[in-house]
Amino acid sequence: MGKPPSRVNICECWARDGIQGEPEFIPTATKIAMIDRMSRMGFQRIEVTSFSHPKLVRQFSDAVEVLKGLHRPPDTSFIAIVPNEKALDRLLDCCQAGYGVDEITAIISASEAHLLANLERTMDETKEALTRIVRRARQGGLKVIGCIGTSFGCPLAGDVPLSGVVDLTSWYLDLGADYIMLGDTTGEANPFQVREVYAEMLDRFPGVDFISHFHDTRGLGIANSMAALEAGLVFHDCSLGGIGGQPKTSRPKYHEGLTGNTCTEDLVQLMHEAGVETGLDLEDVIEISRQAESICGRELLGHSTRSGPVRHRAASLLQAVSLKPGRIIPPSLYFHRGDKGLLEPELAVRIIKEALANNWPLPAGLGVAADELSIQAGLGEREVLLTRFKVLESGRVSRLEALCQKSNGEVVFQGPVVLTFD
Amino acid sequence: MGKPPSRVNICECWARDGIQGEPEFIPTATKIAMIDRMSRMGFQRIEVTSFSHPKLVRQFSDAVEVLKGLHRPPDTSFIAIVPNEKALDRLLDCCQAGYGVDEITAIISASEAHLLANLERTMDETKEALTRIVRRARQGGLKVIGCIGTSFGCPLAGDVPLSGVVDLTSWYLDLGADYIMLGDTTGEANPFQVREVYAEMLDRFPGVDFISHFHDTRGLGIANSMAALEAGLVFHDCSLGGIGGQPKTSRPKYHEGLTGNTCTEDLVQLMHEAGVETGLDLEDVIEISRQAESICGRELLGHSTRSGPVRHRAASLLQAVSLKPGRIIPPSLYFHRGDKGLLEPELAVRIIKEALANNWPLPAGLGVAADELSIQAGLGEREVLLTRFKVLESGRVSRLEALCQKSNGEVVFQGPVVLTFD
Repeated sequence: MGKPPSRVNICECWARDGIQGEPEFIPTATKIAMIDRMSRMGFQRIEVTSFSHPKLVRQFSDAVEVLKGLHRPPDTSFIAIVPNEKALDRLLDCCQAGYGVDEITAIISASEAHLLANLERTMDETKEALTRIVRRARQGGLKVIGCIGTSFGCPLAGDVPLSGVVDLTSWYLDLGADYIMLGDTTGEANPFQVREVYAEMLDRFPGVDFISHFHDTRGLGIANSMAALEAGLVFHDCSLGGIGGQPKTSRPKYHEGLTGNTCTEDLVQLMHEAGVETGLDLEDVIEISRQAESICGRELLGHSTRSGPVRHRAASLLQAVSLKPGRIIPPSLYFHRGDKGLLEPELAVRIIKEALANNWPLPAGLGVAADELSIQAGLGEREVLLTRFKVLESGRVSRLEALCQKSNGEVVFQGPVVLTFD
Repeated sequence: MGKPPSRVNICECWARDGIQGEPEFIPTATKIAMIDRMSRMGFQRIEVTSFSHPKLVRQFSDAVEVLKGLHRPPDTSFIAIVPNEKALDRLLDCCQAGYGVDEITAIISASEAHLLANLERTMDETKEALTRIVRRARQGGLKVIGCIGTSFGCPLAGDVPLSGVVDLTSWYLDLGADYIMLGDTTGEANPFQVREVYAEMLDRFPGVDFISHFHDTRGLGIANSMAALEAGLVFHDCSLGGIGGQPKTSRPKYHEGLTGNTCTEDLVQLMHEAGVETGLDLEDVIEISRQAESICGRELLGHSTRSGPVRHRAASLLQAVSLKPGRIIPPSLYFHRGDKGLLEPELAVRIIKEALANNWPLPAGLGVAADELSIQAGLGEREVLLTRFKVLESGRVSRLEALCQKSNGEVVFQGPVVLTFD
């Protein structure tokens, strides 16, 4: 097991893999707004839609309209799923009209039983069809992700020999695929196996860009993604809210259980704590995952969405940019033991500074003024105080709204606090 | 990072840590039946109740009645939480009356801010109180688990220096504690940190039995338990359904988010796949976790509860004991390509054998008879068939009910199958 790479490239899959099983159709404009927000906040690769047959997966019946509506920042790569040649025709038309994608995902399974159940096609038939798709996509200027489903096991065939995964990787690379994704289609992988498989694959295929993509069928999504990270993988797939991973199909149900992808906000939090750069701000990720919940109309499966970041860990000094307007700064505790009586303004400022310092180390030249604070209660000889803030304005001069309460809820002080950065 | 131990000792925490936040009171007889079932199925250590004040945590107002009602197999160790000396008095009365427990958990926090918020006590005050509790418990013949809460960070104080955790460990060991548990009270740990912390702790305290106990506040429960496993820890706490971990307290809420413990069924599944012996049968664990769901009246947080075990992985040959009456054997796929017409009985037996073999390697001398099978449909030239079984009787001669369907749901055959083991 090696060291994680210092920087990773995260692909946000919510807009495709994430929502493909959602019962309600998500309006086209909402999809576009989410994808635009993802590219603005720094996701380098985004799954934007699927060209599956609109009758089979109604959620993506607006694939063309989504592509038409997207802003296209130069550093963001858009990805679409192309299950067959008709789908490729539709996508290539978009590309020619100037609103295509950058990459497509081609999908085969390492388990023939799975291909038969899913597509009613043998391995050879699937390879034949995919060969045409990959060649034409590359001629059309698209990068190709060669996905090998059921690489870690198959509920129909049981264990899947690695030799088959190796053969399909060589086959994809010979066709010119740009990335290889070992799919854990039905969530069979465990992190011990992930380490072994990727150690062998990276050894056999040095220099090839493998993509980590795990489902959470057995609660191991994040542990598997971490194993892939430590194996050295730079490319990681995940979905806001940890949803998706459920192929929407009319075939008989051949596996049970929850699915879900590795959750973006939890994975980003883990990576940041491991010192891995993602190019993302965790609080931005948590905010967009809350928006994803509001769009889906329910709480999704992310944990960091609710817990927030861990305080202080790997934190840089407090800066004005840390203070985004509207954000709540988590409550901090102050234990008073001393004289009974009215709270002095100096003590209020000390409490405010300590509460901020519980979240970020404070820069040397930070000015803290609380002249307009309203002090509303005295203190006993022994008092536990909780102080929280809401950011009102951010800048060289930032303004917070402070609220300090006793453990019984009684308000000790509240009002504006002004922070001045050097 | 080392190799996992070959065998672990798992403590099932559902009956205490798991249900402490449940809104409904769980009847005493139900608690007793669950704990008895846990000890019968092979959990070596079980958290059975808490002697918290009945008004503070109503769920455990029946602590004495639970203890009175339990069967006491010689190899099972029962554990109760004892938050203060009054609680210890009540427990020691039970011990003297012949229905006590084997171990108690004593709890302190590495972060004084957390102690102040939770107990309104300083570090010194808490140590003083705990000293009496630990000494008296040991005099009463009880083993003591010394739990150090917020060992991996504190939402109030931020980072928690390891030196404080080291000092408290020494302090507990001097008092005679039998185990040390580094608590991740508010779910701050990440697996990289867990490795580092336990590497250092095991180095400083060789031979001490540390207990792994993680919350799932940020979706990292199982990854953290795995990190502790690979650090070499033998003792692991977890809860059926992954619930709990939420201290029920009247104090102001000082942290947000989901909580939950590492989930027993998911952890056992992971351990088995890593070749670690738990002394448990995963299917038994999944069954009792379904019972836990039925008691709590909702789906809990386990994933394996729904996905079931991964087929074939680390599977031994099919034996009669694998076939527990009432169990469903997951559906298997058979792809027919050949003559159109009625299904011949020989082909039905071949399909049945392949379906079984997708779940377990079959022993050489296994007899498979399907004379009473009712064949109800013919086959096309190309047909995907799904076959599943329900176990009717288990023994040297076992009986299964088979059901084979086409992908459109049409029944091809159904009826009894007789397996004869050598």
